[in-house]
Amino acid sequence: MATRLRIAVIGAGYWGPNLARNFRSSADWDLAAIVDLDRVRAQKVADAVGGVPVLTDVEDALADSTIDAVAIATPARTHHPLAMRALAAGKHVVVEKPIADSSDKAREMVDEAQRRGLVLMTDHTYCYTPAVQKIRELVSDGSLGDILFIDSTRINLGLVQPDVDVFWDLAPHDLSIIDFVLPGGLAPRQVAAYGADPIGAGKSCVGYLMMPLQNGGMAHVHVNWMSPTKIRQMVVGGTRRTLVWDDLNPQQRISVYDRGVDLLRQTGFETDRATATVSYRLGDTWSPALSEREALSAMTEEFAGAIREERSARTDGYSGLRVLDVLEAASRSLAASESFTPLRGALAETAV
Amino acid sequence: MATRLRIAVIGAGYWGPNLARNFRSSADWDLAAIVDLDRVRAQKVADAVGGVPVLTDVEDALADSTIDAVAIATPARTHHPLAMRALAAGKHVVVEKPIADSSDKAREMVDEAQRRGLVLMTDHTYCYTPAVQKIRELVSDGSLGDILFIDSTRINLGLVQPDVDVFWDLAPHDLSIIDFVLPGGLAPRQVAAYGADPIGAGKSCVGYLMMPLQNGGMAHVHVNWMSPTKIRQMVVGGTRRTLVWDDLNPQQRISVYDRGVDLLRQTGFETDRATATVSYRLGDTWSPALSEREALSAMTEEFAGAIREERSARTDGYSGLRVLDVLEAASRSLAASESFTPLRGALAETAV
Amino acid sequence: MATRLRIAVIGAGYWGPNLARNFRSSADWDLAAIVDLDRVRAQKVADAVGGVPVLTDVEDALADSTIDAVAIATPARTHHPLAMRALAAGKHVVVEKPIADSSDKAREMVDEAQRRGLVLMTDHTYCYTPAVQKIRELVSDGSLGDILFIDSTRINLGLVQPDVDVFWDLAPHDLSIIDFVLPGGLAPRQVAAYGADPIGAGKSCVGYLMMPLQNGGMAHVHVNWMSPTKIRQMVVGGTRRTLVWDDLNPQQRISVYDRGVDLLRQTGFETDRATATVSYRLGDTWSPALSEREALSAMTEEFAGAIREERSARTDGYSGLRVLDVLEAASRSLAASESFTPLRGALAETAV
Amino acid sequence: MATRLRIAVIGAGYWGPNLARNFRSSADWDLAAIVDLDRVRAQKVADAVGGVPVLTDVEDALADSTIDAVAIATPARTHHPLAMRALAAGKHVVVEKPIADSSDKAREMVDEAQRRGLVLMTDHTYCYTPAVQKIRELVSDGSLGDILFIDSTRINLGLVQPDVDVFWDLAPHDLSIIDFVLPGGLAPRQVAAYGADPIGAGKSCVGYLMMPLQNGGMAHVHVNWMSPTKIRQMVVGGTRRTLVWDDLNPQQRISVYDRGVDLLRQTGFETDRATATVSYRLGDTWSPALSEREALSAMTEEFAGAIREERSARTDGYSGLRVLDVLEAASRSLAASESFTPLRGALAETAV
Repeated sequence: MATRLRIAVIGAGYWGPNLARNFRSSADWDLAAIVDLDRVRAQKVADAVGGVPVLTDVEDALADSTIDAVAIATPARTHHPLAMRALAAGKHVVVEKPIADSSDKAREMVDEAQRRGLVLMTDHTYCYTPAVQKIRELVSDGSLGDILFIDSTRINLGLVQPDVDVFWDLAPHDLSIIDFVLPGGLAPRQVAAYGADPIGAGKSCVGYLMMPLQNGGMAHVHVNWMSPTKIRQMVVGGTRRTLVWDDLNPQQRISVYDRGVDLLRQTGFETDRATATVSYRLGDTWSPALSEREALSAMTEEFAGAIREERSARTDGYSGLRVLDVLEAASRSLAASESFTPLRGALAETAV
Repeated sequence: MATRLRIAVIGAGYWGPNLARNFRSSADWDLAAIVDLDRVRAQKVADAVGGVPVLTDVEDALADSTIDAVAIATPARTHHPLAMRALAAGKHVVVEKPIADSSDKAREMVDEAQRRGLVLMTDHTYCYTPAVQKIRELVSDGSLGDILFIDSTRINLGLVQPDVDVFWDLAPHDLSIIDFVLPGGLAPRQVAAYGADPIGAGKSCVGYLMMPLQNGGMAHVHVNWMSPTKIRQMVVGGTRRTLVWDDLNPQQRISVYDRGVDLLRQTGFETDRATATVSYRLGDTWSPALSEREALSAMTEEFAGAIREERSARTDGYSGLRVLDVLEAASRSLAASESFTPLRGALAETAV
Repeated sequence: MATRLRIAVIGAGYWGPNLARNFRSSADWDLAAIVDLDRVRAQKVADAVGGVPVLTDVEDALADSTIDAVAIATPARTHHPLAMRALAAGKHVVVEKPIADSSDKAREMVDEAQRRGLVLMTDHTYCYTPAVQKIRELVSDGSLGDILFIDSTRINLGLVQPDVDVFWDLAPHDLSIIDFVLPGGLAPRQVAAYGADPIGAGKSCVGYLMMPLQNGGMAHVHVNWMSPTKIRQMVVGGTRRTLVWDDLNPQQRISVYDRGVDLLRQTGFETDRATATVSYRLGDTWSPALSEREALSAMTEEFAGAIREERSARTDGYSGLRVLDVLEAASRSLAASESFTPLRGALAETAV
Repeated sequence: MATRLRIAVIGAGYWGPNLARNFRSSADWDLAAIVDLDRVRAQKVADAVGGVPVLTDVEDALADSTIDAVAIATPARTHHPLAMRALAAGKHVVVEKPIADSSDKAREMVDEAQRRGLVLMTDHTYCYTPAVQKIRELVSDGSLGDILFIDSTRINLGLVQPDVDVFWDLAPHDLSIIDFVLPGGLAPRQVAAYGADPIGAGKSCVGYLMMPLQNGGMAHVHVNWMSPTKIRQMVVGGTRRTLVWDDLNPQQRISVYDRGVDLLRQTGFETDRATATVSYRLGDTWSPALSEREALSAMTEEFAGAIREERSARTDGYSGLRVLDVLEAASRSLAASESFTPLRGALAETAV
């Protein structure tokens, strides 16, 4: 293998220690420094991974010409300025999600990286789990056929977040995964979002998000902080097979059903619209064995690969941008009032 | 017990035999006749329940003054004319769902029954299952508190119906159940429906339906003909407890979770908006034993009770009307195009 | 197809109606008569399947030379005399399980059928379910490799039977299935059974049955009338793959796991005992689609096939005999007292 | 609270770090030293919990009069000499399971501790999980009634251990739990064990263990290294209710079923044996909320409590001894050959 790349992890809060541990144990990387304004916090992370230099000023890391890249794990509002500075200093950048706190800023970051020929990657960690890697592979190699619908459920009894609603808290996972597994990425032209705040939290605690897919299909995401049971499930329906990913079933996370509905089109001269005949396949179910690799380890490998091969990372800046664009459209949809259809007047009178 | 009521079952197709069998074995009813234009079909049903008279002309049943009521299990478009004729003849009427093929006609039927002081009941059979009866009881006695959200999933690999889309095929079950268990019945002012037809069937095969509940809550129904796995699940979230009904788990159909999110409002003079503090309850789960009574048997008892006590049936004509009103609004919502929010232009260009 | 075979069903109690219905709807069979001492009961069964002659004397059926076979569904103690009479009259015979009320009588029946060249079949219905047929196929075609262990659980809250203990009530199902799927049939040389009667029912209500298999393997059956949950599960472990049959999971009754333990033997001159190295396979899981055919329909087809092809039925008289032999050995094992190993004296003193 | 007790952890291998971490974070304990012959290994553990003294000679810890107790987490064969030395030095002792490598040695340890008035505790960690604590509580407060049967399953695809068979590897968990929850502890007079070694590993890889309970009940343990699926389940059947503990279902680990079989005894003069009538309860299911406390933390608290209150620990030396006694009896049972009942000769000839 070529010489190792050198990286500084910026931010020693919640996620930074995980990044530090994985870059430290990677064969691709040397962990060059832990950077945090709070030296004590940085030192603690450095000690836990075994003696890595500590810096309190980002500029010191950026000025170090032996450092190839930075991993940013600071609060979302600081992602843009830090990433722009790092890119300006010629560093490759991987940013914890969300890539920025607005799509405008994310777009600037993406443009800047492209202009400078540097890798800008979003750390959509979930995409590097063995399950999601397998889903991408099964979509990509045609095992599922064309994608007809995606239905994702991410619900549990969750903390009502102070700053964000349930869409911004939970849906980034679903959206980044959908972006990762669909051949064309997450590219809806439009979005509809419906939220409920039945406890008066001042923000949606229950949310539903719909996005048309190509060819008449639809993706749907259900996020919920108020469910007493925990569900993490995604169904990916295709023309050939349908896949169910149940992330809480370690004994059978992924099931691929060779079952489905086929529409046999018959055309005859006596009718100018196609007559449809439906047939069913009731075939076998198959559950692929999955590796047990830690997701962040695969992420660090992908980041190194993108840099060395001078290519985009699988979860590049655009993927982070696409997720932000959908979330922002969802917020606009929530604020819009015309999205409901009124019942006709008569019921309002007879009901109640 | 008082003398038995006498009923004629009209229609010997799919549902008629079930009605005949249950009225026949009821202590409240005498099954007076099976009526069908097709005498052979009627005779077969009559034989199966043990020698009941057969008629081919509805008028013969309506003219029989010993007959108190009729049960209509004919195609939906005939419900209105048959029910109006029966009501005009002074008979109480129970109608298979949907109560009519339009809400206008249903409204006429409801008005006619009311004017004549006759019982008009919709056979929302699911509402008479022990599970749904228990849910209604637990909502009604306050065990769940105020209802915050309802999420219903009814998906499987299903026949693409020739005449109706997936909403009209499956959602009547969910809607009639929601109508049955909510204290105020199904009374949304507005509805939003989103459907997908990814196989080109000419109608929605995957559908999502949202309805605001009182106090900021929301009901959501997911119906789907294309799921390789079968799910029949409804979550009813309340301020005190949350109930999960899993109809495919005979060993634990209903689970009541004493878990939830509480919002403790604190007001202080230093702030004019309430500061919310969230607390969690992580209490016990309880699964009530359910009786094993057949739903249709309970339905026939309720019909008799309503007639004898000169009261509305629990699933009266209005309930059938409310379900139709929501379905019609859902169809209008599907036809509307402004319900999606477009993504901003930039993504359309960067995305591929 | 050749002309249909003609059969009389003897016994119109619990199981007879099912046999009558399936022989009636079979393309292989004409249902020639329903025989029962109780004419009313026989007539009811005959009516339900649509006009079949009724007899009250078995001899009338046996004297009818147009009748090829009889199906015996009478109480167990009458199986032997009825079957012996039928065989003497030259009829092929299928007998509801148990084939007789003692292995001695079963052996006589088997010998008599063999001597006369007639088919004697045991109606081990479970063996004709699509799931068990598939298990037999997967064992037989080598998909599982050599069988290492079988573990079968059949527990629920069950009726304490007046005449039989839990072994005789439930284990015949497990034993007949094991007999059906093992290449050599159920052929243990010895058996150990342990039962408990903690409610003083006068018989075992909880039972465990162990039987050595060839090559050091073991079959174990757990039957239990006192379990609050219902389990119907069989694990068949093989050298190549392991199969789990969960009969209460209609969405995935059979799972075949390509996982297992391999023992790699290494021999070296420095050691006279083989050094074992264990390796693991963690492969895919596969769940075959199963047909939805009713078991009894497949049973009637097999009976006809055996008669026409002059061969043994898959569940022939011997299989019924083998099941009886194991149950009788289990009863002897239960009665034996030396099967437990005492703890050493000291504990009895220290323990309370 | 009184002053903290001081403890030395002996052994820095697999389990020692967990003990060190929990004693370190306990309000009851000061972690006085980590002891291991391998100083580097000891230092690593000491560093991980933040600067605890390291010793390489046990005698140094035993000579330190400020140390009240030792926790022994060394290989099983060293438990006896180390514990005897520590007791002789006046230290309270907690020993990792198994308490010793033979019941004779365990008995010596128990006697020695009793003679000296010191606490000897077995670290049966599983007993301190919230689930097992709850089971003990529900047995103890009479919620389950008298215990009728216990059925424990602990199976998965497991490593074939070099030194021990599947009974000694896995059953100590089940046995220590049964010992913990039964009012009288694990006190069978006799045991029967059946093992299979179908892969030629030289030891049982599949095992079944039966023990009579009082009043005609039975406990059964199924341990298995060759199951492709993982099950950790214990059913505790009582006269009032039956409890199912499914340790792999974090959403509902414990279910208490108010279902069961009742035997109503009727005596009449016409019969000298009681006529039994069975009745069924089909009541509710209840799943208690469980705390999330780490088991080892509760264990360290119990150890401190026993020392301070001069009482036996809940999992004292006797409990470790009882588990060993049962395992040794199981090994003797396995070696015995007369525990199977032969089938009668005839089958051996007809079969095959």
